[in-house]
Amino acid sequence: MQVINLNEKLGLFNEHWSPKVIGELNGQAVKLAKVKGEFIWHDHAHEDELFYILKGTLKIEFRDRTLVLQEGEMLIIPQGVEHRPIAEDEVWLMLFEPISTKHTGEVRHELTVDEFEKI
Amino acid sequence: MQVINLNEKLGLFNEHWSPKVIGELNGQAVKLAKVKGEFIWHDHAHEDELFYILKGTLKIEFRDRTLVLQEGEMLIIPQGVEHRPIAEDEVWLMLFEPISTKHTGEVRHELTVDEFEKI
Repeated sequence: MQVINLNEKLGLFNEHWSPKVIGELNGQAVKLAKVKGEFIWHDHAHEDELFYILKGTLKIEFRDRTLVLQEGEMLIIPQGVEHRPIAEDEVWLMLFEPISTKHTGEVRHELTVDEFEKI
Repeated sequence: MQVINLNEKLGLFNEHWSPKVIGELNGQAVKLAKVKGEFIWHDHAHEDELFYILKGTLKIEFRDRTLVLQEGEMLIIPQGVEHRPIAEDEVWLMLFEPISTKHTGEVRHELTVDEFEKI
């Protein structure tokens, strides 16, 4: 059992769209990510996903609208809802989702990560 | 699906030791709480619990040591580990735990809440 300092963890990596696992509980993973640019359209068939913004502004496109998340805001995307995150400038965020979740969802893509690095 | 602004939610209540549910995903609840003073010794037999500090300094006593959490830090307390949070000054925090979790764990106490308010 160890205190996890988010800023310290955020200092350990710089790559974009490559979430790092910083903790696990009840079958869920807590991840940190730095993102910039456009991600791909995807959904998670069986898993809800939480985004919490630590720095910057994240747009999330849905098929019927776009939501904008600022620092200190969160969004829970229910399973099966297609979405595409877009970060015009770099965004730092925390994710909560089942340990099994792939960040490209049902879509196989060059950005797909099969096992997330733990930091 | 709605953007959740943590500061806005934190402005909706002032009572201590009375977590409010701000979201649910994958059978887990995201809660906000304001705490001050000493809580009771308790554990959660089957549920891990995450504390993330939004403001202030939270001490958490365990039977064999005490950990101190500052703003921007988190701790995951594994199921079955007895603990007692202590906030000398007011602390604002986010909790992540199964929807079924009672904050007094296996202990029945005047602080026990049977159903957490959603805000």
